[in-house]
Amino acid sequence: MRILVTGAEGFLGRGLVARLPDVYPDAKAIVLTDRTFSTVASPGMQQRSGDLSAAAFLEELLEPGFDLIFHLASVPGALAEKEQELGFAANLLAPLALAREAAARKPGCRFVFASSIAVYGALGGRTVTEETPLSPDMTYGAHKRMTEILLSDLRRRGELSAISLRFPGIVARPASESGHGSAFMSQIFHRVAAGEAYDCPVPAESTCWWMSRSAAVTALLHAARTGTESKSVVQPPVLSATVAAVAEAVSRVTGQPFLIRWGHDERLRQIFGAMPPLDATPALSLGFCADADLDALAVAALSGD
Amino acid sequence: MRILVTGAEGFLGRGLVARLPDVYPDAKAIVLTDRTFSTVASPGMQQRSGDLSAAAFLEELLEPGFDLIFHLASVPGALAEKEQELGFAANLLAPLALAREAAARKPGCRFVFASSIAVYGALGGRTVTEETPLSPDMTYGAHKRMTEILLSDLRRRGELSAISLRFPGIVARPASESGHGSAFMSQIFHRVAAGEAYDCPVPAESTCWWMSRSAAVTALLHAARTGTESKSVVQPPVLSATVAAVAEAVSRVTGQPFLIRWGHDERLRQIFGAMPPLDATPALSLGFCADADLDALAVAALSGD
Repeated sequence: MRILVTGAEGFLGRGLVARLPDVYPDAKAIVLTDRTFSTVASPGMQQRSGDLSAAAFLEELLEPGFDLIFHLASVPGALAEKEQELGFAANLLAPLALAREAAARKPGCRFVFASSIAVYGALGGRTVTEETPLSPDMTYGAHKRMTEILLSDLRRRGELSAISLRFPGIVARPASESGHGSAFMSQIFHRVAAGEAYDCPVPAESTCWWMSRSAAVTALLHAARTGTESKSVVQPPVLSATVAAVAEAVSRVTGQPFLIRWGHDERLRQIFGAMPPLDATPALSLGFCADADLDALAVAALSGD
Repeated sequence: MRILVTGAEGFLGRGLVARLPDVYPDAKAIVLTDRTFSTVASPGMQQRSGDLSAAAFLEELLEPGFDLIFHLASVPGALAEKEQELGFAANLLAPLALAREAAARKPGCRFVFASSIAVYGALGGRTVTEETPLSPDMTYGAHKRMTEILLSDLRRRGELSAISLRFPGIVARPASESGHGSAFMSQIFHRVAAGEAYDCPVPAESTCWWMSRSAAVTALLHAARTGTESKSVVQPPVLSATVAAVAEAVSRVTGQPFLIRWGHDERLRQIFGAMPPLDATPALSLGFCADADLDALAVAALSGD
């Protein structure tokens, strides 16, 4: 079995790569790609630096064919909104080219795509289901939705065994990572755990969807193995909770005081902190799971797994 | 005012071009483009033959900038399903490149896109509204939906004043035109009007959405003039009727007998002949209209306008 991971140096990528050898001990090749690598390759893995939106690099990368591809590479939403050319190349042209080339090299190849809840756009108060209309209100979400549609069509045609997972903001990203409008969702973990004060930009009652990196990686690995009865787009289960409830959980599991001043950034609250309930029945029935509870989320988010 | 029409030699394009001089008598330039032209340019119009998915042609075409673009060029659904490379270039890459280049040359340019009801996919029996989930089940519809999403995003950003119209099969296409799975919808008009027998592939009770070319052109021209209160995607009103009712109307207005044998092509019926009712309130409130009734549809479809 030959496996490719794009965006392998990203937050989600590093989490996935750490677990691949255990899950696929007999893989013939595990190839990691990203723009640059700052880490050293683990034994048995190959690192390939390059730009997926460059046709020559992509062709050479995919030449041997892969049985399983995790496409995680992406320019984050806030950055893509500012840098339109970069976002168009990385978040739209690259996945379209990768998917089509992968299908041409190895028809029926399993293709797991890290999509985003940004495909929904403003949600209002109604419970999110598979019937929820999609009207992305950031370029990032528009490109993710366009990619989902192309992948569903390739799947319908039997060219790729594609599955798209709509991830919420994954926690806790390193404190240094920028480009994510949802950075506050990770800062809450770091600051409370460190016993530091934090000016959170959104109000205490802002309700977000939460998922630890460990739970996200488990979802990616499960998506890679679910059979043809699966769907082409899956909304994985999440924990839905207020930022205050999450801060309390972090305080509880770390024994640190809770020194947060809540803010009033209405735009950030609208995008990330006004999430309605989710009916994740379809994903649950396929065997996907959320973090067990907020304490488990806090422990997982802080563990570095 | 500078106006561009792509796909100007197509069925819809020829109908639109015939009415442009009356609607825009003071246009500084009316530029028509298509792969090839078999007609001679009308006075005051320029014809430019070329391939919109070729970057050099597109750049040169758009270099002077346009105030209004009608993007009609498209590879029909049945052909795009067979010829995937052609469909990808013409129905996805070309509109994406055209829209982005148009916005770069003239920010805020009015961009009217001929989308398709193929974006819906299988509809079931429920009335179609703006909330109806979209799950295109042909590559053609997938590409149209992806283009709508990109255009809505460019509109949100203020880069293009884009509007997408979801057209049903337009009648009556020339009997010679191929590539459309919905060809039977046009043949009914031609054959009944000629007093000829016709083996229609779908059953008599198949319900389609109907629109004459004249009504479609009126919708395009109206879309070009509706203000910023408009929407980024509009489902124009249609006539919803069985193929038998339409054949009767053609027989009635032409005085010809009605010599149709109805078939049993379940796939064609599913795609084109199983249309549920449409709630076109949003479009009606923006001033869009359908053909007045089936007799008016028959007269318009046969008039060549």
